Amino acid sequence: MTRRILWLNPVMNSAYDVPIGDSLRAEAREDTRLDVASLDGTGPVHLEYNAYELMVAEPSLRTVLWAEQQCYDAMVIGCFYDPFVRAAKEVTRRMPVTAPAEACIRTAQSVGERFSVLVGRAKWIPEMEENIHRYGAERSLASFRELGMGVNDFQTDPAFTERRILEEARAAVEQDRADAVILGCTIEFGFYRTLQAELGVPVIDATVAPLRYAEFLADAAALQGWTVSGQLGYQSPAVDEYAPFLSPLEPHLAKDPR
Amino acid sequence: MTRRILWLNPVMNSAYDVPIGDSLRAEAREDTRLDVASLDGTGPVHLEYNAYELMVAEPSLRTVLWAEQQCYDAMVIGCFYDPFVRAAKEVTRRMPVTAPAEACIRTAQSVGERFSVLVGRAKWIPEMEENIHRYGAERSLASFRELGMGVNDFQTDPAFTERRILEEARAAVEQDRADAVILGCTIEFGFYRTLQAELGVPVIDATVAPLRYAEFLADAAALQGWTVSGQLGYQSPAVDEYAPFLSPLEPHLAKDPR
Amino acid sequence: MTRRILWLNPVMNSAYDVPIGDSLRAEAREDTRLDVASLDGTGPVHLEYNAYELMVAEPSLRTVLWAEQQCYDAMVIGCFYDPFVRAAKEVTRRMPVTAPAEACIRTAQSVGERFSVLVGRAKWIPEMEENIHRYGAERSLASFRELGMGVNDFQTDPAFTERRILEEARAAVEQDRADAVILGCTIEFGFYRTLQAELGVPVIDATVAPLRYAEFLADAAALQGWTVSGQLGYQSPAVDEYAPFLSPLEPHLAKDPR
Amino acid sequence: MTRRILWLNPVMNSAYDVPIGDSLRAEAREDTRLDVASLDGTGPVHLEYNAYELMVAEPSLRTVLWAEQQCYDAMVIGCFYDPFVRAAKEVTRRMPVTAPAEACIRTAQSVGERFSVLVGRAKWIPEMEENIHRYGAERSLASFRELGMGVNDFQTDPAFTERRILEEARAAVEQDRADAVILGCTIEFGFYRTLQAELGVPVIDATVAPLRYAEFLADAAALQGWTVSGQLGYQSPAVDEYAPFLSPLEPHLAKDPR
Amino acid sequence: MTRRILWLNPVMNSAYDVPIGDSLRAEAREDTRLDVASLDGTGPVHLEYNAYELMVAEPSLRTVLWAEQQCYDAMVIGCFYDPFVRAAKEVTRRMPVTAPAEACIRTAQSVGERFSVLVGRAKWIPEMEENIHRYGAERSLASFRELGMGVNDFQTDPAFTERRILEEARAAVEQDRADAVILGCTIEFGFYRTLQAELGVPVIDATVAPLRYAEFLADAAALQGWTVSGQLGYQSPAVDEYAPFLSPLEPHLAKDPR
Amino acid sequence: MTRRILWLNPVMNSAYDVPIGDSLRAEAREDTRLDVASLDGTGPVHLEYNAYELMVAEPSLRTVLWAEQQCYDAMVIGCFYDPFVRAAKEVTRRMPVTAPAEACIRTAQSVGERFSVLVGRAKWIPEMEENIHRYGAERSLASFRELGMGVNDFQTDPAFTERRILEEARAAVEQDRADAVILGCTIEFGFYRTLQAELGVPVIDATVAPLRYAEFLADAAALQGWTVSGQLGYQSPAVDEYAPFLSPLEPHLAKDPR
Repeated sequence: MTRRILWLNPVMNSAYDVPIGDSLRAEAREDTRLDVASLDGTGPVHLEYNAYELMVAEPSLRTVLWAEQQCYDAMVIGCFYDPFVRAAKEVTRRMPVTAPAEACIRTAQSVGERFSVLVGRAKWIPEMEENIHRYGAERSLASFRELGMGVNDFQTDPAFTERRILEEARAAVEQDRADAVILGCTIEFGFYRTLQAELGVPVIDATVAPLRYAEFLADAAALQGWTVSGQLGYQSPAVDEYAPFLSPLEPHLAKDPR
Repeated sequence: MTRRILWLNPVMNSAYDVPIGDSLRAEAREDTRLDVASLDGTGPVHLEYNAYELMVAEPSLRTVLWAEQQCYDAMVIGCFYDPFVRAAKEVTRRMPVTAPAEACIRTAQSVGERFSVLVGRAKWIPEMEENIHRYGAERSLASFRELGMGVNDFQTDPAFTERRILEEARAAVEQDRADAVILGCTIEFGFYRTLQAELGVPVIDATVAPLRYAEFLADAAALQGWTVSGQLGYQSPAVDEYAPFLSPLEPHLAKDPR
Repeated sequence: MTRRILWLNPVMNSAYDVPIGDSLRAEAREDTRLDVASLDGTGPVHLEYNAYELMVAEPSLRTVLWAEQQCYDAMVIGCFYDPFVRAAKEVTRRMPVTAPAEACIRTAQSVGERFSVLVGRAKWIPEMEENIHRYGAERSLASFRELGMGVNDFQTDPAFTERRILEEARAAVEQDRADAVILGCTIEFGFYRTLQAELGVPVIDATVAPLRYAEFLADAAALQGWTVSGQLGYQSPAVDEYAPFLSPLEPHLAKDPR
Repeated sequence: MTRRILWLNPVMNSAYDVPIGDSLRAEAREDTRLDVASLDGTGPVHLEYNAYELMVAEPSLRTVLWAEQQCYDAMVIGCFYDPFVRAAKEVTRRMPVTAPAEACIRTAQSVGERFSVLVGRAKWIPEMEENIHRYGAERSLASFRELGMGVNDFQTDPAFTERRILEEARAAVEQDRADAVILGCTIEFGFYRTLQAELGVPVIDATVAPLRYAEFLADAAALQGWTVSGQLGYQSPAVDEYAPFLSPLEPHLAKDPR
Repeated sequence: MTRRILWLNPVMNSAYDVPIGDSLRAEAREDTRLDVASLDGTGPVHLEYNAYELMVAEPSLRTVLWAEQQCYDAMVIGCFYDPFVRAAKEVTRRMPVTAPAEACIRTAQSVGERFSVLVGRAKWIPEMEENIHRYGAERSLASFRELGMGVNDFQTDPAFTERRILEEARAAVEQDRADAVILGCTIEFGFYRTLQAELGVPVIDATVAPLRYAEFLADAAALQGWTVSGQLGYQSPAVDEYAPFLSPLEPHLAKDPR
Repeated sequence: MTRRILWLNPVMNSAYDVPIGDSLRAEAREDTRLDVASLDGTGPVHLEYNAYELMVAEPSLRTVLWAEQQCYDAMVIGCFYDPFVRAAKEVTRRMPVTAPAEACIRTAQSVGERFSVLVGRAKWIPEMEENIHRYGAERSLASFRELGMGVNDFQTDPAFTERRILEEARAAVEQDRADAVILGCTIEFGFYRTLQAELGVPVIDATVAPLRYAEFLADAAALQGWTVSGQLGYQSPAVDEYAPFLSPLEPHLAKDPR
């Protein structure tokens, strides 16, 4: 009962595809196969700005169509702003689509009572806070804390990054009464185990939690038929209507070597 | 002290540009000049689906850049889902950008206590309801009511459209305790005056209200310097960074004849 | 298409009428005529207390009746507690009535994401916070900050006032993550331009924003007939019933010299 | 340990003073003495309009000052809009002031889970709903239901009134899932016992509940010193400042005959 | 018209029964008779943990049944987590049941605008905060503050306890803008008068407020028949069904000596 | 990597243990082993009343301790009121505990936008609605709908039950704008597949969803160490303190035959 999951780094930058793939396969269930994709072409290499999200919207959505066609069991759009999920649910009927904020929030709500989100820059907070409201998690939010780093700084000097996360995570626990910490960017991957051991509270990684959640949704879709409802807001457009301008697009792909 | 305002129909369909332009210029202040634009190319001719919004995201945002460059005093992104406003605020520093839902809600809140939104299809409601929450207007919402019509049906048989709107608006007032009615799609233009006379409550048109609000914001920007704050969530990316993939784009344009 | 707007300082103190009038006319549209009024008689010279609001309720409401009779296009009740607006909407049918908090909040929400309100004393906060909830703006509120000054201190030593506002506004931006600042009292007029230049974020003045909003509402009323709805909570009492005890009252008036 | 309570009918109409006094004394504790007052002069004889509330604001507040001076142990401002309570709390330091909506809501929340409020006209609902939000009771509200009667109709044909209340109360229980009913106007007095027996759910009377709550607050003030806090929003103005325009006023008084 | 009230310390520890009884009788109305009970057997001597609440659930609920049978006029379940109130309302039909948080919150809301709750440990906060939300009091909450003491520390060194409460209460008023303070544990009894005198704001005691509220509810039940509604969530199970496993249980009792 | 999960029917009734076990094993992952337990002794055979929940609290919690000791990978407390979860999280440190409402709500929120909950009786709604608020899902709730059946009626005449569920589910979709349906009682098991096929929207079963969610949490605990945080509200009592009155209890057990 192997599940095939597609992780999309929705940027024109394949640099993180292999490291995220390797890192996640070490965390996945034995029966999970994980391919990691990114977008071809010229465009944003990070999504700190909502404007940049819009610049990758079209190829990302087309990748969703491709993934459904390829029979993936679930897909993760790998950005903590959870972009394009509504549109993805419209154009898919079988394959669940999730994203980091949804998965991290649900995980944190099951293991703790109040979480802090560690973001790179204060700039990210308002859009993320809107999502927290959309997910109904505002009463679970202890705080946002800012690391003062950009997306592409996190993996440059890992020791520094780890130290900064540790400082802010500790302050979240001690000053803001958080009992769980969410790493609010997928590129903060690779740190959670050390931090968790150090801090003694769950540290929710923004790549691992959505993998876990995707496995859960993939099972629920495959075994129970619990997939996106087309009854209301996720109703699909007619293929005839959209075929001229919205078609599947194969992304840049790092396949699971197994 | 003439204000130049750009109305964008964010679709690959210029059919409504002239009628909306004519209709709005009859409602505008004397010192307002209103150009109406739509998008070139092949793509969605309506935005009933969030997926379709994504397919016009890039050219719409590039039009925003072009409009700021052309020194428009304000711009309206003419779809009741209020798409791309966050991104538009990031990449502009001088020109205010508004959209129908924001403008209609603020107008309705000033003249009444509870409004109903008349939508074409139930499918539209969840995304619109999210916006109503984002604008903090959930306690002002009496109901959504569905006309059972698509965007491109509204102007096909105007007498039928008017009758349907009237039926649902009346039910909103009598059954849902609304004291104001919002027409929840820009293509419901041309009906509000008759309906308002018939119903005896304010009927807020989704093209006229954003024009009015754009004039207000244009004045506040020009006279008081109250334009988008770059301090937090609307911080701008560096031009150097985005120039390779995000540049101004001139839309299909119907200029104010005056 | 000249608009005539009445600004009411709802206090028995005409000292601010001329300076506010002069200051606002410099900010108004060319086609706006602004008269400034205050109340005759013995009574409160500021409204820091809700009890004082009640002591000016009757003459204020009678002034509203007078203004509607005099065919003003819009009226501002110039106190940041937004007093008497519900009652004013009941007894008017044509003339829009607005007030500083509504106008400042809507302006701040259009240009930023989170605002701080700078109040004179902590005493003012609870009543103002109730209004922020009534306007659905609680998620936009970064903080209240207290200047430690009474209404009638603000214009006594302008340099001191400016310094204090600057200190608290800076703290609001740096510590409370505000990206816009609202001056929470009309008598904080005259400072916003300098502060805004200094701080680099929008500073919303409690006299200018309602003027702007009144112009917007006046246009919407005159051109679209969007005035107060009498369908629900703003239903009017019968003139016959109230004539014996509620009649128009001409206020102390400083007319627009133009 | 006798408690003296003042009930104010805040209208220029003494017609209900004796019947309300008689009715309430039959419901009061043995050690309660209840005086009932109304306002002298020409003015509103009911408060269905917020504008009318403003016309009785000054004499009502002056009556509050008088009552504190006369050493009443508690006072009820007898209108279901709960008018003037904030101001009353500012100018008193010893005597608790309560009002019908607060008392009815708290009572209903202790005996049931969801209440409906039976109002005379739909016109009343928005202002009352604002109060329900201010009291944090929005999740306890099952519905408002409208009787189609004015304040001064309730006692004209009691059999008719009772029948109408019964119809709407039954619908509230059966259709709106209310398990308690609040009579949303003080002049709906005299009906609750019959209705309660008939319906089998608590029917909270808008005169009796505030009497009960006033006794509770009077005890807490007298025995524990739990009276209004002057620390924040209820801070008092200086007597010197307000004495020229705000002084105690003896109302029209129907004293407890005991 | 004497009222008999039962206070239950829902723990297997009778040490506080006499001191709480003595202390409360000095605060009660003259016509109140107050018996204090605790639970027999081996079990928790404090309820800092929700798990401990569950271990006393059965005998506590059986005591409620006993109290209704004994014709008490009201009962208080004396723990600030307000445990078992829903169940108690199901199995009683005549006797009101209240608890400290409900009573303290309602009292604080009537005398002030924002309260702080002083808890022993941070551990208690999430469960208490859930109750504050259930009571709709989240907008009245200024802060929780932690004393760093367990339940059974409060009466060990009263001078130390008083000093700690004073420190945190002062910080609540000065830093968190509270204008009332709630002592968030019944075993913080005996301190409120001194603290209140020192601080100048109402300090609500978690034993005295529920006594007061119980008297209020007892009167409303006895005089108006306003007792728990069986219409919806508080519907009772059939006695036949529950008799085999749920029967009245006489607690350890310290009777009112009068 | 087999996961062992314990399902507890927290009632003194083993009748459903085998059917639920059989039914769930057919839905589980291949590597899941599912034991089903119920409670020994005399007591409630259903939990429609909160009072009944309290009567099974102690043995249920002791079963949680036993399950942690037996090294189960996760446990479900099988009642849609989600009882005892907070306490269970306090006394466990390794084994995740979940319950039907949490699991169903999270599943429904991932596949749809608005769900209806089909309950047996209106009596259940208020307690369930409190949970929906605690989970922050109030904006996802379309409606509760009542089947007019008790817990122990559901499996008596399955054809009737199915028909009733279908009727109400259809009304939820058509009248309440639900796009997903939750079966709000574990004993509504066995129906979801037929209903889902008939209705065309996801029908979330209250036994299957928590199984799925338990697998997800078990993986997250075993692979990432994301288990309950002891930092704040789920802090554990000292074993020494609770050992005298709270010890592991082996339940009535139907083991996985595989």
